Amino acid sequence: MVKKFVYSFSEGEAKMKELLGGKGANLAEMTKLGIPVPPGFTLTTEACQDFYKDGQNKIADGIIEEYKIHVKQLEDSLGKKLGDDEDPLLLSVRSGAAVSMPGMMDTVLNLGMNDISVKGLINKTNNPRFGYDSYRRFIQMFGNVVMGIDGEIFEKELHTVKNEKGVEFDTDLSADDLQKVIERYKAAIQKTAGKLFPQDPFEQLKMSVEAVFGSWNNDRAILYRKLNDLKGLAGTAVNVQVMVFGNKGNTSGTGVCFTRNPSTGENKFYGEYLMNAQGEDVVAGIRTPLEIQALKDQNEAIYNELVSYRDNLEKHYTDMQDMEFTIEEGKLWMLQTRNGKRTAAAAVRMAVEMVKEGLIDEEQAVMRVEPAQLDQLLHPHLDPVAVKELTPLAIGLPASPGAAVGKVVFDAHLAHELNESGEDVILVRNETSPEDLIGMNASNGILTARGGMTSHAAVVARGMGKCCVAGCSTAKIDEHARTLEFNGKVFNHGDVITLDGSTGAVYEGSVPVTEPELSGDFGALMEMADKFRVMLIKANSDTPEDTKVAVKFGAEGIGLCRTEHMFFEASRIKAVREMIVAKEQVEREKALAKIEPFQQKDFEDIFKVLEGKPMIIRLLDPPLHEFLPKEEKDIEDVAAEINVSVEELRSTIESLHEFNPMLGFRGCRLAVKYPEIPAMQARAIFKAALTVPGAKPWIEIPLTGKVEEYLNVKKVIEKVAEELQVGNKVDYKIGTMIEVPRAALTADEFAPHCEFMSFGTNDLTQMTCGFSRDDAASFLTKYVELGIYEKDPFQTIDQEGVGKLMEHCVITAKEANPDIHIGICGEHGGDPDSVVFCHVIGLDEVSCSPYRVPIARLAAAHAAIMYPPHDHDCDCEDEGCDCGHDHDHEHSH
Amino acid sequence: MVKKFVYSFSEGEAKMKELLGGKGANLAEMTKLGIPVPPGFTLTTEACQDFYKDGQNKIADGIIEEYKIHVKQLEDSLGKKLGDDEDPLLLSVRSGAAVSMPGMMDTVLNLGMNDISVKGLINKTNNPRFGYDSYRRFIQMFGNVVMGIDGEIFEKELHTVKNEKGVEFDTDLSADDLQKVIERYKAAIQKTAGKLFPQDPFEQLKMSVEAVFGSWNNDRAILYRKLNDLKGLAGTAVNVQVMVFGNKGNTSGTGVCFTRNPSTGENKFYGEYLMNAQGEDVVAGIRTPLEIQALKDQNEAIYNELVSYRDNLEKHYTDMQDMEFTIEEGKLWMLQTRNGKRTAAAAVRMAVEMVKEGLIDEEQAVMRVEPAQLDQLLHPHLDPVAVKELTPLAIGLPASPGAAVGKVVFDAHLAHELNESGEDVILVRNETSPEDLIGMNASNGILTARGGMTSHAAVVARGMGKCCVAGCSTAKIDEHARTLEFNGKVFNHGDVITLDGSTGAVYEGSVPVTEPELSGDFGALMEMADKFRVMLIKANSDTPEDTKVAVKFGAEGIGLCRTEHMFFEASRIKAVREMIVAKEQVEREKALAKIEPFQQKDFEDIFKVLEGKPMIIRLLDPPLHEFLPKEEKDIEDVAAEINVSVEELRSTIESLHEFNPMLGFRGCRLAVKYPEIPAMQARAIFKAALTVPGAKPWIEIPLTGKVEEYLNVKKVIEKVAEELQVGNKVDYKIGTMIEVPRAALTADEFAPHCEFMSFGTNDLTQMTCGFSRDDAASFLTKYVELGIYEKDPFQTIDQEGVGKLMEHCVITAKEANPDIHIGICGEHGGDPDSVVFCHVIGLDEVSCSPYRVPIARLAAAHAAIMYPPHDHDCDCEDEGCDCGHDHDHEHSH
Repeated sequence: MVKKFVYSFSEGEAKMKELLGGKGANLAEMTKLGIPVPPGFTLTTEACQDFYKDGQNKIADGIIEEYKIHVKQLEDSLGKKLGDDEDPLLLSVRSGAAVSMPGMMDTVLNLGMNDISVKGLINKTNNPRFGYDSYRRFIQMFGNVVMGIDGEIFEKELHTVKNEKGVEFDTDLSADDLQKVIERYKAAIQKTAGKLFPQDPFEQLKMSVEAVFGSWNNDRAILYRKLNDLKGLAGTAVNVQVMVFGNKGNTSGTGVCFTRNPSTGENKFYGEYLMNAQGEDVVAGIRTPLEIQALKDQNEAIYNELVSYRDNLEKHYTDMQDMEFTIEEGKLWMLQTRNGKRTAAAAVRMAVEMVKEGLIDEEQAVMRVEPAQLDQLLHPHLDPVAVKELTPLAIGLPASPGAAVGKVVFDAHLAHELNESGEDVILVRNETSPEDLIGMNASNGILTARGGMTSHAAVVARGMGKCCVAGCSTAKIDEHARTLEFNGKVFNHGDVITLDGSTGAVYEGSVPVTEPELSGDFGALMEMADKFRVMLIKANSDTPEDTKVAVKFGAEGIGLCRTEHMFFEASRIKAVREMIVAKEQVEREKALAKIEPFQQKDFEDIFKVLEGKPMIIRLLDPPLHEFLPKEEKDIEDVAAEINVSVEELRSTIESLHEFNPMLGFRGCRLAVKYPEIPAMQARAIFKAALTVPGAKPWIEIPLTGKVEEYLNVKKVIEKVAEELQVGNKVDYKIGTMIEVPRAALTADEFAPHCEFMSFGTNDLTQMTCGFSRDDAASFLTKYVELGIYEKDPFQTIDQEGVGKLMEHCVITAKEANPDIHIGICGEHGGDPDSVVFCHVIGLDEVSCSPYRVPIARLAAAHAAIMYPPHDHDCDCEDEGCDCGHDHDHEHSH
Repeated sequence: MVKKFVYSFSEGEAKMKELLGGKGANLAEMTKLGIPVPPGFTLTTEACQDFYKDGQNKIADGIIEEYKIHVKQLEDSLGKKLGDDEDPLLLSVRSGAAVSMPGMMDTVLNLGMNDISVKGLINKTNNPRFGYDSYRRFIQMFGNVVMGIDGEIFEKELHTVKNEKGVEFDTDLSADDLQKVIERYKAAIQKTAGKLFPQDPFEQLKMSVEAVFGSWNNDRAILYRKLNDLKGLAGTAVNVQVMVFGNKGNTSGTGVCFTRNPSTGENKFYGEYLMNAQGEDVVAGIRTPLEIQALKDQNEAIYNELVSYRDNLEKHYTDMQDMEFTIEEGKLWMLQTRNGKRTAAAAVRMAVEMVKEGLIDEEQAVMRVEPAQLDQLLHPHLDPVAVKELTPLAIGLPASPGAAVGKVVFDAHLAHELNESGEDVILVRNETSPEDLIGMNASNGILTARGGMTSHAAVVARGMGKCCVAGCSTAKIDEHARTLEFNGKVFNHGDVITLDGSTGAVYEGSVPVTEPELSGDFGALMEMADKFRVMLIKANSDTPEDTKVAVKFGAEGIGLCRTEHMFFEASRIKAVREMIVAKEQVEREKALAKIEPFQQKDFEDIFKVLEGKPMIIRLLDPPLHEFLPKEEKDIEDVAAEINVSVEELRSTIESLHEFNPMLGFRGCRLAVKYPEIPAMQARAIFKAALTVPGAKPWIEIPLTGKVEEYLNVKKVIEKVAEELQVGNKVDYKIGTMIEVPRAALTADEFAPHCEFMSFGTNDLTQMTCGFSRDDAASFLTKYVELGIYEKDPFQTIDQEGVGKLMEHCVITAKEANPDIHIGICGEHGGDPDSVVFCHVIGLDEVSCSPYRVPIARLAAAHAAIMYPPHDHDCDCEDEGCDCGHDHDHEHSH
């Protein structure tokens, strides 16, 4: 059987998304639902794959023949012909991959226009201006998108004609003027591309399809796929559809609408439209469109019809839809429907409300919200008190919520560079285009002067979870001069402004921010998520304050309390330094005795907040030199304070100098050499736990590599427990951090002696991959760029490398001690992909920063839904196991 | 059946070494051979284990009953009784583990002496002086060794009596004087130990046996076992033997002898004896003994008898024997035989000659020489030309060959400390004792004023492979004043001297040294070894000079050529620095172009020396900042030299600063970011290879962690090969170093793209264990002391941790690419234990420093003999495999 590469819209359905792309499948589905869709056909994603086959970048002849048959069918059913001089068929050509991909926005409208068909269009519409305008738009679009000619060249020609005529708007140009534009465009194409604009409509079609396929691998699309972690797609489909015109006068129009508000989630029809315009006019944000409700006054029948499709489609897809429509001379056509992008707040509200409405179930609701997206809700907002005192510079559209403070930058690449060097940046553009993606990604927020709530900037910013103020028309932006002006007040490159994406306000300078208030819907969603997840979610915290936040966000305990943070406080650093310069154990013990009551109080305060939830307390970890001064002046001051000579202190500092401190004298190595340190800490912990009822300390020995060093320190802790007669008065555990590869490799030796283990994936990644996090910037960015690492392994666990070691550790540790509790407490604990991985390899808990606890809770729920835990004894050594789960993922050996 | 803890000499044999200890088993074996051995019995090593059972440190009553039966048998057969006032039985008690262990030298002679039996002994011998002398010796020895009283206390009492009498030597004391000594000794014991010297011989025996068992775990013994890597021993046996006396006048004597010369290996009877002396007198070196040949003149019959035992025992054991004998009133008794310790030169000569004599086969000969011992032969010796011009300060005994230069130190602990801080040290002592072990180990050489070729210092130094000049009687050593004097010339602590252990000469200051000449026997042994080993042995070398040495020592190629060493040379460092400060690729390439001809020449020169042997060339590895100056003055000079401003150079240096350079911007990371660097190096390599016929470059990409970065650099090399049309004109390979744990973990991904891999175990150990070699001293010494690491993992591969990763790497790499060639090039390549491990996990080659090539060759032969390679297709997944090899070791999964 010959492979079918082309499907008519009436042949497909929504399920065929992989093959027809999202847009094509949905056009087919709408056709199936009886919704008016201009007829057309789809070249499949497999045709795209075929295009790239053997690196030839060529459409096979057979595929051309196949789509020509479909064109013929369109001609026959509509009684029009491509390039006809009486009633020409005009087509749109659009890309459409299985996943929406704004990076690849190559669209061609009015295909079929040429010197002959323009006469046919005029003949048919009796509107020469429309005819020539359609023709010049086509040449411009085709020349830019298909032939790759800089859009500005066409703008320049258009300006020349407008200047000659002395008019401001395109609409002021007559048919004759437009003919001049057409001639200038053709000449410009010949001059720039070195070839003629193609008159043959089939040549136009072939070139357009090739351009769409080609755009699959342009830099923007590749970047988008990388940023969004899209892998394993065959390619893009191409949708070829009969043109309908929103620009045939005042009974025509075009618009974009959402079944619910994509910014707030409110269940209210939401959208924008423009009369007498083509679709790109709305999206590109050149003219400012009207609210969809205004259509009711303009044409109630059409509005009601649109509302009925809204209801129909949302019920059909059980999700919020993002739709495009065109009205051609009073007739409504639906051009597209798809699941709409939304802000985190909207995603949460919709998910919860749709459950209440009975549209979806709880599992679906949980899966509807991307964990990473929650970050938007959890980020601080502008301090409302501070804002009250301020007058905004301007108010734009609240295109993507949140707050952003940063330096004004006018160029995407510059924004990227500045961000790389650690600056907070706000990208300021008249409007954004896919070329700006890299800069948007690098910025804290985006400010545009033009474009609406569905403009490129707004859509992309929401997708990225970035704050965005769009269409701020009072902002005068000169991108070349690098100035941003509000009523005469000028901001230059590097000046700081603040954006409030929730109100659209722009402020001068840096405005203070406050904590987010989590809405009721948020809580409801979290409760649903908690029903599914199996991993415990804890937080990393060293203070009662952070612990309060963590508990508020649902942390089930503390997964990492770094005791050294307590050492730095002014009240105790002196004793810490005395301890370090001590020559003898006796002196060291004397200094430690001063620190002990502080430590005890620290732990008591946190235990109280925890109210019986467990806390993993890591013993002193950093190298001692971190506690000593570095500058000469400070050395003198400290020497005086702790009563040693400057020479002595300097010699201590020198003796503690290390070439590679990360791999130096720290962690349990300190504890082994100076057992009085862990003894003091254990005493403080046990005394605190004896004081606060229900306290559950899990004492963690850091940086172990060999079980002997773990046992050495464990013995010290146990001795203290014995001395204090802790007995079973305190429910405590002793365990280790797994951060040295050697410990992971020999987990079977550790496990029988550990009640818990916790992966310190920051250090584990550093040692396993052999690069220091502090130093890796010099090459890691380049590595991610080159695709050597797909993602920064310090952000998302390097599953193939570090992950393999973790998996080995978990399998062998649990074999050696089935009761062992294993978690993770690196920063990876707040990264959704890493959380899923942790679930898959069988971890019992994840600990992350307090603000990321809800993200981890949701990610853990996603993981449990995607990879349900085994509920029977399946011996996975047995390849024949048919428990229905994906063993490769669940426990690859 | 009740366990037997005591064996009569006539019940055992040589094979029972584990149970009876080496000494006991050999006494039994000699008894079996009909050689005259004073009768006795052995408490087994299991009795020692029983002693330590449950930490009770007590001899079980049943064992006491059991040995008492054996004492009774001795009494009955000899007609003597313990403690008898007419004919008392006297016993010796000696330790004897399965492995000779000089650290545990607790021996008690004359046991059974008390106030009554001394009369019996006088009665029997009619020699009051002998009786009292035996008694005082016993009290002294028992008090010191069993009761733990400082030997100096007894010396002081003895001196007091000698002073009172005004005599110099012990022998000048009369029976009466000795009685006084005995009383003083008893009083001293009571005063010091707070209890009486025990008169009951069975109490004496019990206490002595306890002392021997106790000495198994004294610090000296533990240190010795650690230094010599002795593990898994049950304990020491105790040999209780009827005393024979070498000090019963001039027809009595005692001696130590070797069947061949233990220093040179010459097949000539060798030894020393003293008439009218007890055994300890010879070993302790207090009197200077006579050569064994002198015995022939003194008593030819005895001499001939001794020679016949020599012949008999060497044939019987097929190895050089170290024997002790005593002549009691003209009757020869053999007290001990064991395989003798020997110098490396002696071991080699004996092994080769014994093969010629047909005594052993080649496999035995190869196994007879410890690879580590060869180090002695491979170390430089004193430059004979320089020596000719010099007059030695003194000539002592050439107790252990080699040369040593170092600072004079008079105290073992001080020697250890100074050595720790990096000083070369010579330990200078009147005589050494087990307390000095730590200092001997820390010293380059040992000089003693007293003692012979079989003194403690000589025996231990030979075992350690340290140079030693013993019995240098013209040296006046005052250990307290810390002075060494030769004929009025005084050397103080810290002054430098030179020892020649092969001639016994001592020189002032530092004498130049020259390369060792390898004897014919050495070559013969290496040839034998090469017949057994299966791994290739290569050397690490960056210069033609080192390469010549390596080839002379039998290297089969270069396993690691570090190209950066070439970058440091004065002629090219300027261009290297220009490259580093270059801002643009063009500038960088210009600087690299200057370096290229130098690199090419470097490679050509080495290829010529190699004459077709392969060379692994590692691409640039260290961080760039290593090539830049550090001091302000140097920065100014270099800036001027390479024509950039001081500010610019300083800023480059700052930008290259790293917190953890080991884990920083180096290795292939440089190559990925600046592909022009590997391109230049590849060009230099290929051009050189095209110039020198037969050159075989193996180009090695360092510090890879992910296959993508390897492939990135590999592509650069391949492109250069294409540009230079290398084609098959050069037999080259491309591969990678495995030093990042991630690479070892993902070896299956690397292997299909690599023709070879080479473990860089220094870095692999640093990253896997998580400690930097440069910084680890602060805790690693403590760790080895505490037994957390049994050995320094930078000296011997940490098999349980790093080794596990290596094994995983080898297994998965060879599965993915059966043709891959895998080696090791860290410093572990010259460590015999590590070489054995490399063989066991299936490596194809080992590369080490040129001077250690013979050690690696021999170790590889040992490995192949101990772990024969599989010669059939055994599927080791199958647990039922019965190929007869140790799968745990050969490929544990």
